[in-house]
Amino acid sequence: MSGNRGVVYIGPGKVEVQKIAFPELVDPAGRKANHGVILRVVATNICGSDQHMVRGRTTAPAGLVLGHEITGEVIEIGSDVMTLKKGDLVSVPFNVACGRCPMCKAQNTGVCLNVNPARAGGAYGYVDMGGWIGGQAEYVMVPYADFNLLKFPDRDRAMEKIRDLTCLSDILPTGYHGAVTAGVGPGSTVYVAGAGPVGLAAAASARLLGAAVTIVGDVNPARLEHARRVGFETVDLSEDASLAEQIANLLGEPEVDCAIDCVGFEARGHGHSGSQVEAPATVLNSLMEITRAAGKIGIPGLYVTDDPGATDSAAKHGSLSVRFGLGWAKSHSFFTGQTPVMKYNKNLMQAILWDRLNIAEVVNVTVIELDQAPGGYAEFDSGVPKKFVIDPHGSLKAAA
Amino acid sequence: MSGNRGVVYIGPGKVEVQKIAFPELVDPAGRKANHGVILRVVATNICGSDQHMVRGRTTAPAGLVLGHEITGEVIEIGSDVMTLKKGDLVSVPFNVACGRCPMCKAQNTGVCLNVNPARAGGAYGYVDMGGWIGGQAEYVMVPYADFNLLKFPDRDRAMEKIRDLTCLSDILPTGYHGAVTAGVGPGSTVYVAGAGPVGLAAAASARLLGAAVTIVGDVNPARLEHARRVGFETVDLSEDASLAEQIANLLGEPEVDCAIDCVGFEARGHGHSGSQVEAPATVLNSLMEITRAAGKIGIPGLYVTDDPGATDSAAKHGSLSVRFGLGWAKSHSFFTGQTPVMKYNKNLMQAILWDRLNIAEVVNVTVIELDQAPGGYAEFDSGVPKKFVIDPHGSLKAAA
Amino acid sequence: MSGNRGVVYIGPGKVEVQKIAFPELVDPAGRKANHGVILRVVATNICGSDQHMVRGRTTAPAGLVLGHEITGEVIEIGSDVMTLKKGDLVSVPFNVACGRCPMCKAQNTGVCLNVNPARAGGAYGYVDMGGWIGGQAEYVMVPYADFNLLKFPDRDRAMEKIRDLTCLSDILPTGYHGAVTAGVGPGSTVYVAGAGPVGLAAAASARLLGAAVTIVGDVNPARLEHARRVGFETVDLSEDASLAEQIANLLGEPEVDCAIDCVGFEARGHGHSGSQVEAPATVLNSLMEITRAAGKIGIPGLYVTDDPGATDSAAKHGSLSVRFGLGWAKSHSFFTGQTPVMKYNKNLMQAILWDRLNIAEVVNVTVIELDQAPGGYAEFDSGVPKKFVIDPHGSLKAAA
Amino acid sequence: MSGNRGVVYIGPGKVEVQKIAFPELVDPAGRKANHGVILRVVATNICGSDQHMVRGRTTAPAGLVLGHEITGEVIEIGSDVMTLKKGDLVSVPFNVACGRCPMCKAQNTGVCLNVNPARAGGAYGYVDMGGWIGGQAEYVMVPYADFNLLKFPDRDRAMEKIRDLTCLSDILPTGYHGAVTAGVGPGSTVYVAGAGPVGLAAAASARLLGAAVTIVGDVNPARLEHARRVGFETVDLSEDASLAEQIANLLGEPEVDCAIDCVGFEARGHGHSGSQVEAPATVLNSLMEITRAAGKIGIPGLYVTDDPGATDSAAKHGSLSVRFGLGWAKSHSFFTGQTPVMKYNKNLMQAILWDRLNIAEVVNVTVIELDQAPGGYAEFDSGVPKKFVIDPHGSLKAAA
Repeated sequence: MSGNRGVVYIGPGKVEVQKIAFPELVDPAGRKANHGVILRVVATNICGSDQHMVRGRTTAPAGLVLGHEITGEVIEIGSDVMTLKKGDLVSVPFNVACGRCPMCKAQNTGVCLNVNPARAGGAYGYVDMGGWIGGQAEYVMVPYADFNLLKFPDRDRAMEKIRDLTCLSDILPTGYHGAVTAGVGPGSTVYVAGAGPVGLAAAASARLLGAAVTIVGDVNPARLEHARRVGFETVDLSEDASLAEQIANLLGEPEVDCAIDCVGFEARGHGHSGSQVEAPATVLNSLMEITRAAGKIGIPGLYVTDDPGATDSAAKHGSLSVRFGLGWAKSHSFFTGQTPVMKYNKNLMQAILWDRLNIAEVVNVTVIELDQAPGGYAEFDSGVPKKFVIDPHGSLKAAA
Repeated sequence: MSGNRGVVYIGPGKVEVQKIAFPELVDPAGRKANHGVILRVVATNICGSDQHMVRGRTTAPAGLVLGHEITGEVIEIGSDVMTLKKGDLVSVPFNVACGRCPMCKAQNTGVCLNVNPARAGGAYGYVDMGGWIGGQAEYVMVPYADFNLLKFPDRDRAMEKIRDLTCLSDILPTGYHGAVTAGVGPGSTVYVAGAGPVGLAAAASARLLGAAVTIVGDVNPARLEHARRVGFETVDLSEDASLAEQIANLLGEPEVDCAIDCVGFEARGHGHSGSQVEAPATVLNSLMEITRAAGKIGIPGLYVTDDPGATDSAAKHGSLSVRFGLGWAKSHSFFTGQTPVMKYNKNLMQAILWDRLNIAEVVNVTVIELDQAPGGYAEFDSGVPKKFVIDPHGSLKAAA
Repeated sequence: MSGNRGVVYIGPGKVEVQKIAFPELVDPAGRKANHGVILRVVATNICGSDQHMVRGRTTAPAGLVLGHEITGEVIEIGSDVMTLKKGDLVSVPFNVACGRCPMCKAQNTGVCLNVNPARAGGAYGYVDMGGWIGGQAEYVMVPYADFNLLKFPDRDRAMEKIRDLTCLSDILPTGYHGAVTAGVGPGSTVYVAGAGPVGLAAAASARLLGAAVTIVGDVNPARLEHARRVGFETVDLSEDASLAEQIANLLGEPEVDCAIDCVGFEARGHGHSGSQVEAPATVLNSLMEITRAAGKIGIPGLYVTDDPGATDSAAKHGSLSVRFGLGWAKSHSFFTGQTPVMKYNKNLMQAILWDRLNIAEVVNVTVIELDQAPGGYAEFDSGVPKKFVIDPHGSLKAAA
Repeated sequence: MSGNRGVVYIGPGKVEVQKIAFPELVDPAGRKANHGVILRVVATNICGSDQHMVRGRTTAPAGLVLGHEITGEVIEIGSDVMTLKKGDLVSVPFNVACGRCPMCKAQNTGVCLNVNPARAGGAYGYVDMGGWIGGQAEYVMVPYADFNLLKFPDRDRAMEKIRDLTCLSDILPTGYHGAVTAGVGPGSTVYVAGAGPVGLAAAASARLLGAAVTIVGDVNPARLEHARRVGFETVDLSEDASLAEQIANLLGEPEVDCAIDCVGFEARGHGHSGSQVEAPATVLNSLMEITRAAGKIGIPGLYVTDDPGATDSAAKHGSLSVRFGLGWAKSHSFFTGQTPVMKYNKNLMQAILWDRLNIAEVVNVTVIELDQAPGGYAEFDSGVPKKFVIDPHGSLKAAA
């Protein structure tokens, strides 16, 4: 059982599946991690934020093992772990969290103070997030396992829904956090910027939360078509009609109650010509325009402190030209940051297990083998309406 | 247009349709009500709380015009009304509220301080609620119309959904308030005590709010069968198995996250023999038993300060034998009172208009003519799984 | 009683006290306003946001009667008004609000939909805020009086505290809203940007809310000295030590729990040289730097949609260069907009009447006669640590 | 260092200081507790809830080591503990909590699921709370130390305030939880039932939260006199004037915004005769009477599931005769349960360290030696207005 293989970042545009070390109960600083467990990875997903690294937009070093969306089976248990046993099937929140700092105690696990010496908040397989080894691999170590892991109550029932449950590690809670912070509730009208997996997860979350109508906007025709197929209204941002006009066509008024930015800093402009050009504040500015007075704007889409690959020198340092006065005039509020997955994942698991949330269908989960990961990265980068889920041990294939 | 007819309380067990005065823009104290409008009633429902009066459980005087669930068309407008015009189709919250007192300003319209000299809170057609004339009639006056009324944005679209929209005046927001105060959200497991219309509305609200599973309990087999038909799990309280056991059979554990009391003070005991005997605290006590630690209990079911018809002398004065220590040990919180309809009705209207909430089907709306109201009262009192909606001008019939 | 005099905007840098029309119960569109009352103004304050107009930073037309901070005595009552009588002493929220639209019903009176045809939200005596005549005058009309006005329960007790109570119309609730939205509570460490009256009101609010320590930052030495005199810690932004360093000197760490921007779009840069140059995003960016992870930033300071007087072309259109990635990395949330005064003024009145809040002392209320208003404007603009309160009828002088 | 002495329950009315075992890193089930630490106790308080046991109102067995209000110095550290080191001065929340169950993750540490096999929630030195050894001793073991302990940031500064900081383990957060759940905020009028230490802590908390006026009610003249001395209004419940009348004398109206029950199940009746007789629902019923419509009632006072010592057979099983209809008519909500100390203690520590909260003075902290504990129990039981703090190693004496 001492072998392991994982998806490794080689350089801009390039990932490979390589042999990597079998995980140990040791933290990135080399300390024994008796609080950890080792998982046999059952499902691990390719995430849009992995693309930021793979496109070379970050300072990620070659050799980094990718992967922060992990579901697995416990195969080895540290001596301090109390609530888990071998064979348990668990979902891993992408945030590494200690469970012992003031942030974790207040449910802000996205900004744990003890897992990343550089800043608040850690994650697996991600640049600047604490050095935790990624989980797009056969095996992975999860620290503070009693605190971090969500155990599925029934293994067989879980395997039947595994394509849905794999979304609990990141995109589903992330989209849901966007919807919750945007104030979505029964009867809300909602606009989601971005029809990628997080956008679709936000839309599905809005529907679960009782939204009257959920509109998804994008420039990618295939993604928009998929969004319609799974039941959402859409707005095509490559058209010349403004976003407000297109919303008015759907709702009879040019504003929504709640808006969610599932795009982030790699946004592109709007309209025929604009859609080719990067325009980092364009989503935020358009959301202020189309959100009603006193509305809330949830921003799960990633904005970075430094963006060496930005075309604009201000954006290189994370500065965006925001129409802040417009938001102020409408009494908007804005909610940012990494999603604290643990705040939501148990409830969302329940919703999946009781057939209230067909997230796999909504995001179009597409299962691939570990060796197909590089192809999955490339295809995902091309904008296909698919969420790639790596099945390193063939468990999903067997369950299907 | 000066004629009017309404449903009048005659005495215990007896209501009649009688000629009554055409409404005037005057309040119960005889002051001119330029803030009011007169409605041609389009739909007006028989409510379980009307039954308390009709059964003789209250001090309601003979001659009282019943009806606090009203939807109508504006036909006359007071000089101070700004936002409404003749022909507008509107839903009337059952709470009469002034819009000018600290309670109304803080969205607590269920306890308005200016519409009932006797106590906080007013309603139409109800004993001790301020003397406002009821709306189970052809025409009715609504005071503070700009504040109170919810206008349907599109008259034609509204008439297509009128059987659903008529539930906005009371039972839907009341059930929803129970669900919201009980903390229902995505993934919750929910128990609703009572399969009458408010219980079903609470269950439908829980579903809209994203509940994983909603269980409805009652002793009435026809109501339970209807609850199952519209998609809820059920518990038969006439069986000898305890509520906790029956919940465990459904969920694998004997507790739920959230509980809603849609029964109130006329509760009856549990089990074969118990179900015939009135036991006013039985619902509350059973909810503490089956609600998990740190859970919330929403209590939209009516409890009264004085109950002259109670079998028990303590209950006559509104005192119940509550197992308060059990709730305390589990850190429960309890939420009571008349629902502030205005806090919720606009969002629920949106949910109906966008096909997210089939409340008419869930509560089994059954349309009757005004002259059929006495029969409706009698049939409803027998426990049929129906919500009777009076159609005084044949508008619903025409729309169907 | 038909005479009236008020403070009139003449042009950049110039205001005059002129004869103006005695108020009528008529709204800006010329409609009869039976919902209104006429007040004899007891106290009316000069506000920092008046300065934006007087400095010529807006499109305010010559002839505009200024003044949105008003306390007065009811002398005439429209026929629809129910809860007020002549002689009542009342505080007027600066927001004009109808009490009948969805925003008002949900306590968002800062963005009322019915009082300003141009956009959500109205105010007295302010450009683009609906055309309501200002109250730096002897008499003023207040519409929707039952809804808008806060009556002081005891006239004599109120006159004893009138220098405090005059702050209820705007700056106290505005500072308080900043503190509340920033999440201030018992034990919080708080930083307030700006030692003007709103900044001091925010600091006083933070103290009332239980903050452990409240730090006020500014570049104006007189204002900083006053802030220290009334019990706050201070940071001198004209020093070369960074804000974070100065906070660390006070707290032992470079971050606070909660931050409040009481400066807005006319911010100036930091440090010896910077403090002379306008730098509209400098406050926001510095607050992201010194607010802890998962912290909240309250932004009562005004940001405008258009700023014709800006030095920077982006700022002319309300665009600011915001380090949004920094806030995102720290999971910040941001709360903007006009304060909904009515949500807070009753509670704050209680705090004043029971001696919990010495706001007049904190903001250094300085009473002047109506004819001294032009001088008050000039002196306030020079940065003195005073809050000028106009006493048009000598009522405050008499009460002192 | 292997000796230890502690306060031991012998039987009704009797406690003794005895030699007890030196603590080990072992849990009540005998499992190794590497997650624990051993503390040298610096301060440990006698609590009103200890009295329930000592009066013989519970099934506490002879030999039980008492004490759940503990502050100490870390002297031994389990191998899994990461964030603490020897010499750290720490406050121990009275709730034992694992930090790993869904309740702990959601800040409901009062109902932790892993520390008490009998029910949700554990505590030190208390019957039915999991068997954790009490801390009225020289040394004590604290499990899950990283999660449970609050470290004081500066040891010297902490020892200067140690008489205040010792209140963080229970009564201060407990009173504060009552105030928070009752909705106390700036400007609130507040009634606190009970002038014992928890009642005074609730009153101090209300003041810190910005309450306009805080009224404390009791029958004990010495406690009332002390309450007035530390700045609260009082109501003497042994007088014949009703509570509502006495409140009206103070406030001008017979109701308050917020009410807090700091008495619990051992309540006694009101008035000259009533005050001698136990009347378990009397506090709850009186609070419904004097709390305004839509008000909240916080109930930190203990109510038990079984009360073998009750005079009333219903009360023996925890059933109380509650005027539930009265609360319902006023739309009250009710909040019960053990306080989750960890939710509040860090912020309250900050308030103490920054001189915002003189809790030791308010509750009249009275320091005694370990050997004086039996006398402290007896004196406290007699109703003196003192909070007894045991100083087992003379540390407080040395610091004073």
